[in-house]
Amino acid sequence: VKFGTEISREVAPVRKVAIAGFGTVGQAVAKILSERYHERFELTHVFNRDVARKRVPWLSSLVQWTENFDDVVAADVDVLLELAGGLEPAGTWVRRALESGKSVVTANKQLIAHHGPELIEVAQAHGQQLLFGASVAGGVPVLSGLQQGLAGDKLVAVCGILNGTCNFILTKVERDGAPFSDALAEAQQLGFAEADSTDDVDGFDARAKLTILSRVALDAAVAPEQIACRSIRTIQSIDFEYAHDLKCTIRQISRAEVNGHALAASVAPALVPRTSPLAAVQGGQNLVVATGVSGGDIVFSGAGAGGNPTAVAVVSDLLALSAANRAVISPARPQSSYFVAPDFTTAHYVRFTVSDRPGIIAAIARIFSEHEINIDAILQKPGYPKTNLPFVVTLEPCKTSTVERAVNDIAKLDFNVKAPLSLSILPR
Amino acid sequence: VKFGTEISREVAPVRKVAIAGFGTVGQAVAKILSERYHERFELTHVFNRDVARKRVPWLSSLVQWTENFDDVVAADVDVLLELAGGLEPAGTWVRRALESGKSVVTANKQLIAHHGPELIEVAQAHGQQLLFGASVAGGVPVLSGLQQGLAGDKLVAVCGILNGTCNFILTKVERDGAPFSDALAEAQQLGFAEADSTDDVDGFDARAKLTILSRVALDAAVAPEQIACRSIRTIQSIDFEYAHDLKCTIRQISRAEVNGHALAASVAPALVPRTSPLAAVQGGQNLVVATGVSGGDIVFSGAGAGGNPTAVAVVSDLLALSAANRAVISPARPQSSYFVAPDFTTAHYVRFTVSDRPGIIAAIARIFSEHEINIDAILQKPGYPKTNLPFVVTLEPCKTSTVERAVNDIAKLDFNVKAPLSLSILPR
Repeated sequence: VKFGTEISREVAPVRKVAIAGFGTVGQAVAKILSERYHERFELTHVFNRDVARKRVPWLSSLVQWTENFDDVVAADVDVLLELAGGLEPAGTWVRRALESGKSVVTANKQLIAHHGPELIEVAQAHGQQLLFGASVAGGVPVLSGLQQGLAGDKLVAVCGILNGTCNFILTKVERDGAPFSDALAEAQQLGFAEADSTDDVDGFDARAKLTILSRVALDAAVAPEQIACRSIRTIQSIDFEYAHDLKCTIRQISRAEVNGHALAASVAPALVPRTSPLAAVQGGQNLVVATGVSGGDIVFSGAGAGGNPTAVAVVSDLLALSAANRAVISPARPQSSYFVAPDFTTAHYVRFTVSDRPGIIAAIARIFSEHEINIDAILQKPGYPKTNLPFVVTLEPCKTSTVERAVNDIAKLDFNVKAPLSLSILPR
Repeated sequence: VKFGTEISREVAPVRKVAIAGFGTVGQAVAKILSERYHERFELTHVFNRDVARKRVPWLSSLVQWTENFDDVVAADVDVLLELAGGLEPAGTWVRRALESGKSVVTANKQLIAHHGPELIEVAQAHGQQLLFGASVAGGVPVLSGLQQGLAGDKLVAVCGILNGTCNFILTKVERDGAPFSDALAEAQQLGFAEADSTDDVDGFDARAKLTILSRVALDAAVAPEQIACRSIRTIQSIDFEYAHDLKCTIRQISRAEVNGHALAASVAPALVPRTSPLAAVQGGQNLVVATGVSGGDIVFSGAGAGGNPTAVAVVSDLLALSAANRAVISPARPQSSYFVAPDFTTAHYVRFTVSDRPGIIAAIARIFSEHEINIDAILQKPGYPKTNLPFVVTLEPCKTSTVERAVNDIAKLDFNVKAPLSLSILPR
């Protein structure tokens, strides 16, 4: 890359701002803009369904409230803040804004995960910028940190806790020994989890964020569908008991790691050593560890969601746009193609639940041995019935795919009364 | 501030680069530039004393090695990387580079702490930029995070562990029960501490970094001399025993906090709750917590020193310069004047060492009461001689200055065989 090629495009300075989506984040952004930056930015439009219900007294009477996105497109607006979320109609709004000569700041993780690269091209084609710092880890400035503060390093891995709901639920199972379904119901009652918990619990929310992180940190041209998700629904209170014996806890871990031409990437529950900063993450906090060839592990953490923290990320992007003058500061479209597989080389934890009889350990050991996997230890807690007996095998470091093939073979044997559960054990 | 005022100055694009100071950091920077960015930046000069001794075979033969800074000043260089450290002659080099139309990237914490604001003005006067992301916390991208990623928040406090040597020594005293002098000697033998340990142990190194953090995070126009430093030399192994009983450890803590027109700021050993991320910082790691009105606590951590991590910060600044086009990205000269005092409102720990006799507790309690300080608890471990008896009083939250006045009064009483030691207890 010749010096200077990325700074050739002219971008209009930022001043007039429209908000699409006046929910928790949209309102928090409007508050910050009106309290701290009213001399710097002019909020000209608030676009929402049913604006009558949304109107607030603390915004300037000059703000135009509208239910028609055409009003925003037609207006002399410099930047659209897209804070509605979801793929559509938000995607159409973002595209129309870019095409009509407006830069866009968005907090929309699903939109950026699924359509970010093409939207970056639309932005470039129209001399505009597309920033999405708020789409990952809420108020934690991790995307700007990766893109700017760590620009001088060659990053090879990212690993993090990106979903506060899963963290809440797993902590609940861990502390109270509650069944998974009870912990989920409580999270829903308290408003930490949606009525439809799939996005959080089955990993799709975290997967969108990991997709974006992988692009920005690792320049990986990766789509969310390429990243394997495993639900946390399979985690039981007994898994925490075994995890504690192994000086670990269990968390929903999102990680991606470059290995030559392969990208190992997955969102899955994993055993995390208690000494890891990942193990200390509480409630709605998010934490990301970025690993560089030169700088080693760098940790970013803070509030991963919520109106005000997310609004900080949106306003920070807006300020960056306004200071950027003619420099293009949008993340670039990622360029590196990788073979993507959920294939990390780590130690593993496998919990079997069996109807006990002689020869089970021998059968399991034989199959692991056939797959050239070394058993590290066998753990069995007393006090369970012989007809529904859980025990754990830990394995020395090897590829996740190898473990899964072996466990699939073992799962076919008739002593299993539940499907075996295999989890990575993160290194210290 | 009117929109656009900060983006009016033209800054030349970056291409030709000179390095002043070819030590550990300078060499690491040169390696990264030649391995990853040889098409983007041209290293034209390496300036050092005794260059014959410094020459390396892996740099292009086109690089000019020089012992004369005039060569750099006269050359067509876009950016000087000042990696020599110390106030002088580094300060003169930086000034001359700026005055001759070169932007500067520096890792020099003392220079920026003592002369940063005037050097920023020199840079502005000559249409150049001055970046110093590497001057605080080595490879941890905290300055860029504060300046860009958290730009949209109103930050009110920073708190961190900014000196790896102190961390090493305190950990040693904690784990081995070693006397302070032994732990220091070992740190020196292992190369973690300089022969002259004052800068590290007495807090001047951390104070320079806290000065810079306070300017960038809090816009505080503060000079290093305004920030009180307290040495960690007074910490004894018994303090860790009491700290553990209080579910704490002891760390050298650098912190600054805005309270109306006052800035509470200090570098001092303090009790840190074991659950705090500050308590988990190991060896040479650095960690900074920035607290914002909207986003709450954001944590940055990673390698705080070392050639490669520091080089990442230098190269990241260089990349930012090259992408900035006409935008000014140097931190601004701080504008907010505060009354600066080491005056935090926290709980406190006071360790007395006395020649035991009746009435000591009564005397101490009376003086604390006269200063309107509430005693929380009195702790005394068995097994010490009556003539040299340590015990600890913990105090309910009040101002550090109030505690110090009371402790000074108590120190005058003749039962003391050592000066009392008072430490803040950081909140959870």
